[in-house]
Amino acid sequence: MGLRNRQWLLARRPAGSLSEQDFEYRETPVAEPDPDAGDVLLRNLWLSFDATQREWVKDQEGYLPPVGLGEVMRASAVAEVVRSANPALPEGSLVQGLFGWQDYVIVRPDDAIPPSPLPAGVSPEMCLAALGGTSLTAYFGLVDIGGLAAGKTVVVSAAGGATGSMAVQIARLRGARVIGIAGGADKCAWVKSLGADDCIDYHAENLPERLAALCPEGIDIAFDNVGGAQLEAMIGQLAHRGRAVLCGQIAGYDAPEAPPGPRNLMTLIYRRARVEGFLMLDYLHRTHEAFAELGPWLGSGELRWHADVQEGFEHIPRTLLRLFRGENRGKQLLRLDPPKGGPA
Amino acid sequence: MGLRNRQWLLARRPAGSLSEQDFEYRETPVAEPDPDAGDVLLRNLWLSFDATQREWVKDQEGYLPPVGLGEVMRASAVAEVVRSANPALPEGSLVQGLFGWQDYVIVRPDDAIPPSPLPAGVSPEMCLAALGGTSLTAYFGLVDIGGLAAGKTVVVSAAGGATGSMAVQIARLRGARVIGIAGGADKCAWVKSLGADDCIDYHAENLPERLAALCPEGIDIAFDNVGGAQLEAMIGQLAHRGRAVLCGQIAGYDAPEAPPGPRNLMTLIYRRARVEGFLMLDYLHRTHEAFAELGPWLGSGELRWHADVQEGFEHIPRTLLRLFRGENRGKQLLRLDPPKGGPA
Repeated sequence: MGLRNRQWLLARRPAGSLSEQDFEYRETPVAEPDPDAGDVLLRNLWLSFDATQREWVKDQEGYLPPVGLGEVMRASAVAEVVRSANPALPEGSLVQGLFGWQDYVIVRPDDAIPPSPLPAGVSPEMCLAALGGTSLTAYFGLVDIGGLAAGKTVVVSAAGGATGSMAVQIARLRGARVIGIAGGADKCAWVKSLGADDCIDYHAENLPERLAALCPEGIDIAFDNVGGAQLEAMIGQLAHRGRAVLCGQIAGYDAPEAPPGPRNLMTLIYRRARVEGFLMLDYLHRTHEAFAELGPWLGSGELRWHADVQEGFEHIPRTLLRLFRGENRGKQLLRLDPPKGGPA
Repeated sequence: MGLRNRQWLLARRPAGSLSEQDFEYRETPVAEPDPDAGDVLLRNLWLSFDATQREWVKDQEGYLPPVGLGEVMRASAVAEVVRSANPALPEGSLVQGLFGWQDYVIVRPDDAIPPSPLPAGVSPEMCLAALGGTSLTAYFGLVDIGGLAAGKTVVVSAAGGATGSMAVQIARLRGARVIGIAGGADKCAWVKSLGADDCIDYHAENLPERLAALCPEGIDIAFDNVGGAQLEAMIGQLAHRGRAVLCGQIAGYDAPEAPPGPRNLMTLIYRRARVEGFLMLDYLHRTHEAFAELGPWLGSGELRWHADVQEGFEHIPRTLLRLFRGENRGKQLLRLDPPKGGPA
């Protein structure tokens, strides 16, 4: 076949903040797929960038094994089936999965996380930005862990991010009152345009004071993507029997060591409140529940999504850095240019 | 009547560690009870000392209003009814309630937390040490918040304390595997004598390493009275869907500022785990459930309790300090000498 595969490998464990030098570029020949083994050759079209990738490169316990040194960086992606010995994945169809920072990948039926076909009429951008892990995370975190219901007061941190912007909208569409937290006036304006009742600019405003003013009856559900001081501020304003839903802790991912934890856990006792973590992976068997509610909202335009689209294979590592610099608005994606010498 | 009332008042808000100088001694005449108002005159016999009292003297939000400066220090106690205009509380009978650091107190039927008669055959010590808030806290924290069941791995911090020693035994009697955490070899030996499978001496041993060694499958229920580093260590070893039950945070009560919170809350996400606070006050309508289970265990001697009994009105403030110096083993009580000039 003679295809060449561009790849970005993990070159070293990041010390402190992630840098482009933590990754190494390589080109290798693409192995010949084995039809007898059910091999399917995919070509990546779109890459998804997720804060959790920062955790995958750490040599520590996680919900997936760490990416090994010298291995292709793990990433969620949408790919086209280029060659297939599997009738369920016909050539030319689009699939989603953990295909990594490379042009080509061979997947097999017995892979732990197999590729899943895109629903009809769903573009790769919509798939990754509005129906992927981001939205499922927001949905099940709010509904299942948070106990989302109409009339509740919901606060969402990193509300301008991919997951946060979905959480804001899902909470609002379910009839909750929603306060966002984001960095910068532009992001806050965008979060309000998504339907948040208000949005606190944590760069410019005193977060605990603003939360107290905006949530005088307390926060019923704090959907937290950040950790650190923002989580502490939300815990401080939890309502009686309030819940802090831990989705992520981006404040700590890219730091040399974890930031101080919340010092106000006595509040959990006085308010009979709860802090609980969850992983979207646990809800893969219930995605139909989310899609049944999200699909009509997407179709009607009530649920909006925004993809921040970068271009070019060479820009892959620096695109990941955008997440930790607060540069992305909505879902960070990168569209891959077709590799030279490959099929169009 | 001419009775004189010895009292210890809150003289100032403690700055940093509690000291005897935070309290002031006073003698005042006892007011004449008003039979028409249903007044009942009580004489305190036994005082209970509880870590939560350290929180009551802070000028901050709590589950009860702060004790005011110049007010009698709030305390749980067992008292004898000296004079009564209430047929439900006959003279000579024993009652439990928040009667404070004083010899005499007048209670009324419309008090927010009314006195409750001691069950027949229950001594004041047993009442305060084994059937009071201590045991109810251990019981409902484990059963209701922790989801206690046979076969679970339970870790209890401050396991040599009043609540902790009850939690260890309740967990064991319910068929759980129990690891205690306590300070010092003597306390650890006592905790093991109560039936703990093991007890970690946090003064002498590396707590995270020992928890990992003793709970290789993870902690299902961490019953935490301490907070700070001990809570962080327990969170670090939580099992998949494990629960940290926050009963108290004694590490922070007597400190000038709250100690750093747990930095490892990402663990809650990876393990789908929960940290939840509760207050025994919410379970007062369900005390019969606890007594139905605790009573037979107490009767059979399977559930043991230990009262650390001090004597003398003048020693009341320093007896409270024992809790924060780790000097008490089991429930800290003080027996009051009869006041001069009063009824025997």
